[in-house]
Amino acid sequence: IRRLADLATSRPLEETMIRMSIISVVDPGFWTRFGVHFGLFFGALQGQATPAQMAYWMDKGALSMQGITGCFGMTELGHGSNVAGLETTATLDERTDEFIVHSPTLTATKWWIGGAAHTATHCAVYAQLIVKGQCYGTKTFVVQLRDTKTFALMPGVNIGDLGKKMGRDQIDNGWIRFTHVRIPRSHMLMKHTKVTRSGEVIEPPLAQLAYGALIQGRVSMVSDSANVAKRALTIATRYASVRRQFGGNVSSGAAETKLIDYPIHQYRLLPLMAQTFAMIFTAREVTANYEKLMGELSDLGEAKDAAADDVIKNLKETHATSAGLKAFCTWMCLNIIDQCRQSLGGHGYSAYTGLSQAYSDFAVHCTWEGDNTILTLQCGRYLVATALDARKGQPLPENLSYLKGAVSATGGLSDRVCKGDSAEQVSSLDTLKAAWSSVAANAILNAVRDFETGLGKGLGKDDAYEFSSASRLHAARMHTYTYLLHRFAAQVEQSPAALRPVLTLLAQLFGAHSAVQHSGEFLQSGFYTGPQIETLKGFVTHACSEIRKDAVSLTDAFNYTDYVVNSPLGRFDGDVYEKYFELVTSLNPAKPVPYFDSLIRPLLERTNETEAGPELEIDEE
Amino acid sequence: IRRLADLATSRPLEETMIRMSIISVVDPGFWTRFGVHFGLFFGALQGQATPAQMAYWMDKGALSMQGITGCFGMTELGHGSNVAGLETTATLDERTDEFIVHSPTLTATKWWIGGAAHTATHCAVYAQLIVKGQCYGTKTFVVQLRDTKTFALMPGVNIGDLGKKMGRDQIDNGWIRFTHVRIPRSHMLMKHTKVTRSGEVIEPPLAQLAYGALIQGRVSMVSDSANVAKRALTIATRYASVRRQFGGNVSSGAAETKLIDYPIHQYRLLPLMAQTFAMIFTAREVTANYEKLMGELSDLGEAKDAAADDVIKNLKETHATSAGLKAFCTWMCLNIIDQCRQSLGGHGYSAYTGLSQAYSDFAVHCTWEGDNTILTLQCGRYLVATALDARKGQPLPENLSYLKGAVSATGGLSDRVCKGDSAEQVSSLDTLKAAWSSVAANAILNAVRDFETGLGKGLGKDDAYEFSSASRLHAARMHTYTYLLHRFAAQVEQSPAALRPVLTLLAQLFGAHSAVQHSGEFLQSGFYTGPQIETLKGFVTHACSEIRKDAVSLTDAFNYTDYVVNSPLGRFDGDVYEKYFELVTSLNPAKPVPYFDSLIRPLLERTNETEAGPELEIDEE
Repeated sequence: IRRLADLATSRPLEETMIRMSIISVVDPGFWTRFGVHFGLFFGALQGQATPAQMAYWMDKGALSMQGITGCFGMTELGHGSNVAGLETTATLDERTDEFIVHSPTLTATKWWIGGAAHTATHCAVYAQLIVKGQCYGTKTFVVQLRDTKTFALMPGVNIGDLGKKMGRDQIDNGWIRFTHVRIPRSHMLMKHTKVTRSGEVIEPPLAQLAYGALIQGRVSMVSDSANVAKRALTIATRYASVRRQFGGNVSSGAAETKLIDYPIHQYRLLPLMAQTFAMIFTAREVTANYEKLMGELSDLGEAKDAAADDVIKNLKETHATSAGLKAFCTWMCLNIIDQCRQSLGGHGYSAYTGLSQAYSDFAVHCTWEGDNTILTLQCGRYLVATALDARKGQPLPENLSYLKGAVSATGGLSDRVCKGDSAEQVSSLDTLKAAWSSVAANAILNAVRDFETGLGKGLGKDDAYEFSSASRLHAARMHTYTYLLHRFAAQVEQSPAALRPVLTLLAQLFGAHSAVQHSGEFLQSGFYTGPQIETLKGFVTHACSEIRKDAVSLTDAFNYTDYVVNSPLGRFDGDVYEKYFELVTSLNPAKPVPYFDSLIRPLLERTNETEAGPELEIDEE
Repeated sequence: IRRLADLATSRPLEETMIRMSIISVVDPGFWTRFGVHFGLFFGALQGQATPAQMAYWMDKGALSMQGITGCFGMTELGHGSNVAGLETTATLDERTDEFIVHSPTLTATKWWIGGAAHTATHCAVYAQLIVKGQCYGTKTFVVQLRDTKTFALMPGVNIGDLGKKMGRDQIDNGWIRFTHVRIPRSHMLMKHTKVTRSGEVIEPPLAQLAYGALIQGRVSMVSDSANVAKRALTIATRYASVRRQFGGNVSSGAAETKLIDYPIHQYRLLPLMAQTFAMIFTAREVTANYEKLMGELSDLGEAKDAAADDVIKNLKETHATSAGLKAFCTWMCLNIIDQCRQSLGGHGYSAYTGLSQAYSDFAVHCTWEGDNTILTLQCGRYLVATALDARKGQPLPENLSYLKGAVSATGGLSDRVCKGDSAEQVSSLDTLKAAWSSVAANAILNAVRDFETGLGKGLGKDDAYEFSSASRLHAARMHTYTYLLHRFAAQVEQSPAALRPVLTLLAQLFGAHSAVQHSGEFLQSGFYTGPQIETLKGFVTHACSEIRKDAVSLTDAFNYTDYVVNSPLGRFDGDVYEKYFELVTSLNPAKPVPYFDSLIRPLLERTNETEAGPELEIDEE
């Protein structure tokens, strides 16, 4: 941490980001431990502090951890995704010009706070701002937790360790309770909402500006999903190229067949590889887009003009799209890890082959920074609202241009069909892009229909959205897959000519396999016929057998060293069994059974101890 | 273990089985530790020993663990699912009337052997039987591993600990290597294949008789999947009835909405509840059928007559069906556990809320006793072969009667359609049963088509099966879901009148939700139209909202005590937050940060340590 903090202050940010992306694969728990300070605490300062506040905290050592280690106090025992529902209060005491931070109930206890249990001196606390008896919603306050010299808890601060978790035990998650803790008014981060000395609350002109930080977390999880999936696939693919099973036997003397040469094993792994490449390429593009957008945002100033409108519109679209991407990419990666683990057979269950821990470590990605299900609904709500706006004549954002025509009263999707029945026609990248766009449009229209059915039943707007939540979630899924396929295809077009054939095939496999998984939607939208779906299934099998030829090279291209792969089954040199045996035996050296005398001998040498007499046959009925 | 062993010898078997089924939920690792002796080692004796051998080993204490603790030595470092490919050899030495058991290579090392590392005195070793230079395939041999008095390893036996695993660390899995270990000829289990003093090998008339033990393991995993799913659902459902989120906020003073009252949360949990009931009822029926079949089998004797033919046919069908059930029920349960865990939000990531460990413990069910993917292919191969036999005029087994008509050259599925568009007609249990039967028939015909395409390309039979493996797997899935729905429906008919409405609705939800998940198949088979599928989706949402009223009662009906549920979030009294906080704080009492002086103070108080000088702006380009 010390070394990383030094490098983070002395080297360009991009370098630190690359370092962090490698660490997130090698040691996700450690990554989190550094990340709560660097990404969350310091990120909160960057996003929410005024320039003067930023200068103050930088001077205190908030970036370099010279004097301050930070944590991020958002979630509570009773409140997670609903930040507006947090119970912790920060009440202005105008007399002393201080805020009083307080946990009024048990459920207000700050919970899951990474770094709080052992490490942090300061916390960015999310609390309800209360001024003159009025609540202004959730704002952020820097609260000191511990004396930086003695590490004693500050008065009114109570902290405990959350203990064992599913994964990432390298970070000390804790709970925090505040009992009327006083902080200077200036410790409220006031880039957006400001509170003056006299207790006037000045709200920001553009509330959406606070979205920026949320989007960053989501975008980074697309990259992280890709990076972790790369490791899982490297292990599974290399092992499948070494492991032999069936197809020969000892008595005949013939060698068994390599796993990777079985069509079913190709079918297990290679669509996951296509998904991984889809995430890799999409992550590249959304990261670049995000940075561009943040640049525009910081150039904006605070004026409400046409340029601001455009940026805000773009921000809303990115906010919604990144919500869907975060949810479906983290779910996709979690599934890839476990499918790869299962593909290792029994050895996947060993702690030393790497993927059981990877699963436990990664699983939290589906929950933190917004529970996936809730994010999909956010994305779906945006899609429904955008379709309704388009009906009223509003222009569609580029990523939703596929709704054009479909949203008008007279328009529809009936002219969007696959033209041609051959495997080439059914599975070309252009056809697949059109197919997914058509199906996404159809799913959004179904969600609009359900939303309007809700309204028709007399439900209010929010309840009508709840009523349509299953189809909203589904619309978000279809839109996100469509987005992934389009980004993947766009990146393939820009790739070096020599790589284009295999990358094109991977993009086709991604689109075709995902379409077969959701074939009902394609039949219902009318894009494909039943026989065309059968042709597409045949293409998936064919594409898998073609990609199999490059499978090992494709994972080699991820360029993860044996240190990063960290699994004897995923070794570059294929020397799987020797190294696995060496690892297991070196970590578990032979020693006498410690409980032979105390437990096993008494078991083996006991005489009959049953208290009950023999059973009587006459009692059996 | 001692107590259980005493009870296993003194009480009726059914009682022990009930005990074990409870233990498998409360402590899966311990269950495995007892199970490797009682289920696998003793099970091998029961299934493969002659009466005289059985008497000998019983006398030695093989059931009661008085003198013997057993383990089961099948899998090897290089060989799992392919028992025929095992490398360990057992070579008859006619001179001394002994077998020489040997591990000829590193990959022949027995691996994953539960109980071997610390506990077992004897092992049921699977090895290639070699007599007079000829290999007769894999048979079972009892090999002593340790001196029962001193616990020293026997000469030629080498054992190590496999160490940390994904879950079930309560059992000591180990590896075993044999270096020319001599055992008496009579230690080969000879119920089926026999080897005489003179080295004559007598093979059994009915090779299929050995299937019995395999089927038992698979059938018991259907029950186990149901039992574990019940616990996960109890936790998720009770928590969802207590946890509130959104729909109100602190500033308005309104209470937030309970999770379970959100349509999307009902949609997340209640289809899983329907799946759980499907497994509960199916487990009951297949367990009873299995016991009946085993009775018929043991009455058979060794004659090859018509009665034997019928039993063998039934055995084959049960073998295939149980393979599909084992695979899809364990996958279903694993998914239920993780979906329930995710539905707990962040708290699902705590080790104290129960479901992260449940996932890690359960995951191995998808691999052991036959890797799921391989089992689905076995099942699919049987389905293809049966359809081909039926084409040639062979009668169909009852569970495949839905293939009737469909397999003939002139027949087809075109007349199997949903008659009526109303929600009642689309979603009735009879319609759903017919729909699933039709789709399963269609999937099997597609697998037959792909198999025949393979043959048409000039592939041999085995390669044609490999070629058709994706559609075979799919056929197995459709057949198994159809089987589950039919068993569920049959049990509902026999249930008390007062329970029938809610159970019927659950069975409909199971059939309808699964159909929506696979809507493409229903559209392709022509059973449902697109609009009917939309109606079915509406029914799923409606059924969820109806079942929500009974959701808590349905999980209460599982009758798991707080001890069995073992999660503060799943408490019967709903006192979730207090008890969760108590548990976390009592397991993690406050103490000073142990590494403050050694690590944190030096971090906070360090001066700049960067070796590199400042960056120069002129270098940036």
